[in-house]
Amino acid sequence: MIVEAARKSGLIGNHCPMAARMIRLALEEDIGPGDATTDAIVDPDLRGEAYLIAREELVLAGMAVFKGVFLEDGAETEFEEYYGDGDLVPPETRVCLISGRLSSILRAERTALNFLQRMSGIATLTRRYVERVRPAKVRILDTRKTAPGLRWFDKYAVRIGGGANHRFGLSDGILIKDNHIAAAGSISIALSLAKRNAPHTLKIEVEVENLAGVEEACRAGADIILLDNMGTEELRKAVKLVNGSAMTEASGGITLDTVEDIARTGVDMISVGALTHSAKAADFSLEIQSK
Amino acid sequence: MIVEAARKSGLIGNHCPMAARMIRLALEEDIGPGDATTDAIVDPDLRGEAYLIAREELVLAGMAVFKGVFLEDGAETEFEEYYGDGDLVPPETRVCLISGRLSSILRAERTALNFLQRMSGIATLTRRYVERVRPAKVRILDTRKTAPGLRWFDKYAVRIGGGANHRFGLSDGILIKDNHIAAAGSISIALSLAKRNAPHTLKIEVEVENLAGVEEACRAGADIILLDNMGTEELRKAVKLVNGSAMTEASGGITLDTVEDIARTGVDMISVGALTHSAKAADFSLEIQSK
Amino acid sequence: MIVEAARKSGLIGNHCPMAARMIRLALEEDIGPGDATTDAIVDPDLRGEAYLIAREELVLAGMAVFKGVFLEDGAETEFEEYYGDGDLVPPETRVCLISGRLSSILRAERTALNFLQRMSGIATLTRRYVERVRPAKVRILDTRKTAPGLRWFDKYAVRIGGGANHRFGLSDGILIKDNHIAAAGSISIALSLAKRNAPHTLKIEVEVENLAGVEEACRAGADIILLDNMGTEELRKAVKLVNGSAMTEASGGITLDTVEDIARTGVDMISVGALTHSAKAADFSLEIQSK
Amino acid sequence: MIVEAARKSGLIGNHCPMAARMIRLALEEDIGPGDATTDAIVDPDLRGEAYLIAREELVLAGMAVFKGVFLEDGAETEFEEYYGDGDLVPPETRVCLISGRLSSILRAERTALNFLQRMSGIATLTRRYVERVRPAKVRILDTRKTAPGLRWFDKYAVRIGGGANHRFGLSDGILIKDNHIAAAGSISIALSLAKRNAPHTLKIEVEVENLAGVEEACRAGADIILLDNMGTEELRKAVKLVNGSAMTEASGGITLDTVEDIARTGVDMISVGALTHSAKAADFSLEIQSK
Amino acid sequence: MIVEAARKSGLIGNHCPMAARMIRLALEEDIGPGDATTDAIVDPDLRGEAYLIAREELVLAGMAVFKGVFLEDGAETEFEEYYGDGDLVPPETRVCLISGRLSSILRAERTALNFLQRMSGIATLTRRYVERVRPAKVRILDTRKTAPGLRWFDKYAVRIGGGANHRFGLSDGILIKDNHIAAAGSISIALSLAKRNAPHTLKIEVEVENLAGVEEACRAGADIILLDNMGTEELRKAVKLVNGSAMTEASGGITLDTVEDIARTGVDMISVGALTHSAKAADFSLEIQSK
Amino acid sequence: MIVEAARKSGLIGNHCPMAARMIRLALEEDIGPGDATTDAIVDPDLRGEAYLIAREELVLAGMAVFKGVFLEDGAETEFEEYYGDGDLVPPETRVCLISGRLSSILRAERTALNFLQRMSGIATLTRRYVERVRPAKVRILDTRKTAPGLRWFDKYAVRIGGGANHRFGLSDGILIKDNHIAAAGSISIALSLAKRNAPHTLKIEVEVENLAGVEEACRAGADIILLDNMGTEELRKAVKLVNGSAMTEASGGITLDTVEDIARTGVDMISVGALTHSAKAADFSLEIQSK
Repeated sequence: MIVEAARKSGLIGNHCPMAARMIRLALEEDIGPGDATTDAIVDPDLRGEAYLIAREELVLAGMAVFKGVFLEDGAETEFEEYYGDGDLVPPETRVCLISGRLSSILRAERTALNFLQRMSGIATLTRRYVERVRPAKVRILDTRKTAPGLRWFDKYAVRIGGGANHRFGLSDGILIKDNHIAAAGSISIALSLAKRNAPHTLKIEVEVENLAGVEEACRAGADIILLDNMGTEELRKAVKLVNGSAMTEASGGITLDTVEDIARTGVDMISVGALTHSAKAADFSLEIQSK
Repeated sequence: MIVEAARKSGLIGNHCPMAARMIRLALEEDIGPGDATTDAIVDPDLRGEAYLIAREELVLAGMAVFKGVFLEDGAETEFEEYYGDGDLVPPETRVCLISGRLSSILRAERTALNFLQRMSGIATLTRRYVERVRPAKVRILDTRKTAPGLRWFDKYAVRIGGGANHRFGLSDGILIKDNHIAAAGSISIALSLAKRNAPHTLKIEVEVENLAGVEEACRAGADIILLDNMGTEELRKAVKLVNGSAMTEASGGITLDTVEDIARTGVDMISVGALTHSAKAADFSLEIQSK
Repeated sequence: MIVEAARKSGLIGNHCPMAARMIRLALEEDIGPGDATTDAIVDPDLRGEAYLIAREELVLAGMAVFKGVFLEDGAETEFEEYYGDGDLVPPETRVCLISGRLSSILRAERTALNFLQRMSGIATLTRRYVERVRPAKVRILDTRKTAPGLRWFDKYAVRIGGGANHRFGLSDGILIKDNHIAAAGSISIALSLAKRNAPHTLKIEVEVENLAGVEEACRAGADIILLDNMGTEELRKAVKLVNGSAMTEASGGITLDTVEDIARTGVDMISVGALTHSAKAADFSLEIQSK
Repeated sequence: MIVEAARKSGLIGNHCPMAARMIRLALEEDIGPGDATTDAIVDPDLRGEAYLIAREELVLAGMAVFKGVFLEDGAETEFEEYYGDGDLVPPETRVCLISGRLSSILRAERTALNFLQRMSGIATLTRRYVERVRPAKVRILDTRKTAPGLRWFDKYAVRIGGGANHRFGLSDGILIKDNHIAAAGSISIALSLAKRNAPHTLKIEVEVENLAGVEEACRAGADIILLDNMGTEELRKAVKLVNGSAMTEASGGITLDTVEDIARTGVDMISVGALTHSAKAADFSLEIQSK
Repeated sequence: MIVEAARKSGLIGNHCPMAARMIRLALEEDIGPGDATTDAIVDPDLRGEAYLIAREELVLAGMAVFKGVFLEDGAETEFEEYYGDGDLVPPETRVCLISGRLSSILRAERTALNFLQRMSGIATLTRRYVERVRPAKVRILDTRKTAPGLRWFDKYAVRIGGGANHRFGLSDGILIKDNHIAAAGSISIALSLAKRNAPHTLKIEVEVENLAGVEEACRAGADIILLDNMGTEELRKAVKLVNGSAMTEASGGITLDTVEDIARTGVDMISVGALTHSAKAADFSLEIQSK
Repeated sequence: MIVEAARKSGLIGNHCPMAARMIRLALEEDIGPGDATTDAIVDPDLRGEAYLIAREELVLAGMAVFKGVFLEDGAETEFEEYYGDGDLVPPETRVCLISGRLSSILRAERTALNFLQRMSGIATLTRRYVERVRPAKVRILDTRKTAPGLRWFDKYAVRIGGGANHRFGLSDGILIKDNHIAAAGSISIALSLAKRNAPHTLKIEVEVENLAGVEEACRAGADIILLDNMGTEELRKAVKLVNGSAMTEASGGITLDTVEDIARTGVDMISVGALTHSAKAADFSLEIQSK
């Protein structure tokens, strides 16, 4: 059932002009002036078929991107899909069948796989975090610690894994960090400046490091309080202090081992940088069918 | 001493127009129409200083890129560097001091760190592989399994970690894979087509899966033989069969645990996809200095 | 004093990679392969000076962009500025002195003026709205009805005029409109979907057309309620109904003649599409000094 | 009949690579990483229909651009058009029916309308000028005072409104202004330099400010004389002086109130900056049909 | 003296945003992910000097572009120039001295030379045509038969060689060709449509193939008549027929052998496609100085 | 038969993202804001047909590019092809029939022809070199002396003409030139640095100027030896010295007159810069069919 939900949330928001541009750029990066091996060996008129195989259990994410890469190279390539984004795919399983000009399939293969492996790796790791905290109602969030240029893909994969997205970038969320507080003078001043100057469509989140900070943030009317690097005991106290007057987010070095305990403190959200900066690639390969 | 060598090889080849374009794109991705938080709170005329801190032991890689991101946003930002690419940096160490307009430092911070964390993570992992195989003369190679759009950065980091680069993309190396062989009919035919049609400046590498393939590849005059997914015993036999008539490369699911045994088989090179597709980010943070 | 505040808010947020790209594109649009007139008549080594003159009373906005256009064409051009963004400039007044290669000044003149005239026109009109509602605490907001490709410039000018910005685009604010409500089934369902699926960093605004809608939006926990095309009597009732549980925004065909009455209804914000879609250009010219 | 002619001239010249690029850029500006509201609420598989409604009497301009925006976002969107470019559309009238994926229609709506409102606003204002001068044979011209990046769209709209285009940019017309004359030394010298150095495919226009200038320009063989900021009496004398030996263009602060008198002076052309720098947006809305 | 004039006309119009973009693109094309040879061999800190040597007698054209390529790669490269655009350089002559980072000089060398060789080749060939027709007052013109993407460079080189530019592209000149005439029905109809619909800033040129066409074009008021593929006798008659009422241009397969005879027919201009589509590269090399 | 081979090798490698980008750029360069002549004269709804005519005997190269230009402008244009890449086309022959919107055919005509004329010119010249050396087994190679931005097109045309490609750019081949040798200290040091530092997928070529250099290069294990500017006698000795231990390439000012003698020296390859830097355009025209 979580698969179904994840898939739904995954399908949502799958359009983005930036993403299309990145697909073109990645193909250009790999192909350069041409595929020297394929050009030398494969008849350009030859057609072929290939299966995409999942080599390990994984949460599939990025099929539209995967197909998009092949279509960018060869508009007439076709696909028969057996699994979709959000599905948990068993090891050694055929995920889809690709048919088209063999030379085009070989040329686009690596780029298409590079996107899919990264995105499915992120979705699979996210799912593990989400499942750890399942009894609780806490949301697992990503961060801006994504691969440069790939944020849209990384954050989409988090959604597919059942996580939720924190702000995309610097313009769609207010997050007052220690450095902003230092520049402003205090949490209260920083929050009051943000309320006066920032777009009214954005909630105001502030990072605090101790309970005194929590109190000050509450008094100054923060919408969301980021509890940075606190132990579970301190987190529990912070949640109690806040008492529903703001949303609470735990953050800072959280791992699969610690996430459950943190979830039990009652925070609303837990953000995990590792989802996008340290997920290992999911294992896929392409098997060309001989004819 | 390996640090010195790595640094040298790292400095080499640090110019690439593609890389400059990617830095701009990554900043644009994060900033969008503006940094809502900083714009609301920080006086644009305020100047500040920040230390880049390594939070764990790591091999530093990407300082020119890190600085380039800040300079792209604010041309007058300045740097005082205590460590350089290829250095092994101890945990909790100041790596450099950044001075400039505070708002610009805050705006560029995340993007600059995202590059540096990824690159240093790759360099650090590569170093671990390289050190495992040190008594042997084997080269640790990367693959094309890089983050889309970031190949230049990923491969640079591998060099900094003491590894060597396999081909950059499809145009600067001939690698005849199983699918090309299937399309051609046999290893020999594929090799003879490559010799006739491919640019004469490129060596010809062919992937084989067993000893019969090794023999055929040798007879057909391959320059490099990729020994795919073979056990150490089979690798040893393959190396013996080849007997110096071609370079040999071991590949396929190699880990830190297995790399030493594989190095002892006598292959010339070992390629490791995980260097770039599954390295975890190195841990850095930026500490703004209060004035 | 409002000048001072406007200037401050104007200086804030003046960095945006998109804006730099647009400046280049606009120069390219005007120059094409070259300035046929200047190339034929003006010695490329000749230097010159020009005054930027405001021909009517206006609120100045866009000086950094104005200068940026000249600098993009000729890096050594220099400026002596007598007024800055946010200043109310009297008619027939020198705003700044430009010195540099005469051919470069002539080539960039029209593009630089086109930006400045549009931006100052928007700032001047915004100031008039802001002054009309001054006794009230209401904010004058812009909309997304901007000239395509120029949103950053248009919204910056609104800030300089003393207005505030509504969301920049589709990704940095939730605004549930009639069409979203129709697709969801009801105001309550739409709000509950948004709360579940949308980024938690964004406030949720919903557009309603009558008092029943206001009640439903309040019950469903909207952060902001957009009161669309209501008369002042209905607005007053809506504000009373909401009673501080959400922010209120009046919208729909508001003019300089009606804005005061609407401000008196007690709404928190009034959004005015005309600020950006129908402001007339402010009148400037460039006077080259003969030597 | 003027509708017919305008439409014809409007259809002419509707292809331009720059324009296609601008449509993509404008969509990217508005969508950013995604439409947060629609993504959260609207099922991506849902299809819908919407009417484009003209809310006031207007001259329609930009239907190909309007459709192009939707098609850029969703290739399968379809249109049923009731009016075309150049038509005078009555208030509260359905202009076309759009069918497609509802989420795509909602995402592209604002960008498509922003183009159409601006272009139709310009066409409508141009038509008013053209109608004022109808008994005379004078041409109403635009200028280069267009919104940066949108010149192609602005000038197309002028044609649709029945006006004619002055030069597109600095490379497709010679217009010697006061500053060029100052640099050259005199009107005669400037004209002789232009004749010697400028492309022979371009007519040479010179701006003059008094009757002495007119005489000098005629003697020096100008093809077109721009009579800048002259009163009607002086214009009449200038036209008489020129006596058909060059085309005459009146320019400078001309309004709907003064244009008739100026047309009666016998000048060949009247250029009006306000057509493109100060036209108010035409009023349109999109009405999604419930199903 | 022609050198002086050519240089002057060469310096004129040396700014173009398109050209800057093309320089970047060409460097990117050549460098790709890096200069494998230089990176492997040359210490990145090593500085060096190189002389640009002209290997044959040539008219120099493109020094600003040549320098621009080096500066794009390495901002600190410096130049000492002994010759400038328009100079006739003797064989085996030092043209300029380049100093900077050796690796950067080597990386940019080929791209810089490719621009300079092409441009100087075009200038040198143009000069030969211009000198052949010197006693006559005829202008030697280029055409739009340029290398795709390099039109600005090609046409600049023609000016440096002493030629004049025909229209840059489709938008800055009206040239009615046989196909337009066929579409319109006759020369007269085509001309009258152009007069009514085309921008009034452009002269109207029409291509004719015989004396009947010349007469019709004159009657219909063409500004310029292109006499296509006529023999010298027919050209002479055409010039007489036109009798100064329009400019005349001879065109079609004109070579260095025939250009003098054609010039003597009295035509005003002769356009030569070969200037840009078939000029051979001028011979240059770069000599690195050992230290 | 060589036609057949050339065509095959021509079809190979016809995909490249860079090339697609260049086609768009070239169209934009020519069209600018629009085709002033066609827009003024040709009804946009009119359809037409045109024959592409070869005006002289030539080797056809670039038909996919030629078609691509028309399709970029007008997606519905259609083609009936009578000859393909690699065919030797007799003079005054119809090569293909183009049907579509007449205005689109006229707008794209010049850009499409500019590509085709250049590419076919290069292919035709290459064929002449290839035929001169036919009895020998020598390969005719191109160089990096191509038109900036057009390298993919130039090198494709060389393959179509029966030649082979040297490295595409700086990253897909090692070519140690005199300047690298000077920087390294000697041929041997340069080669040993290249072997240690350069990608193992690339062969190592070194340029030598005399027989001593040949010996040193052989001893140091060069894969390819470029024999620069040697006479036929010296070349013969060099080939004998090398004796199959490396490939040999002759280079330096080779012409159609000298290429046969050089081929007889026994070198493996002859590289000819003139193929791409000085080929004259092949002569084509487009004949619109009247209806």
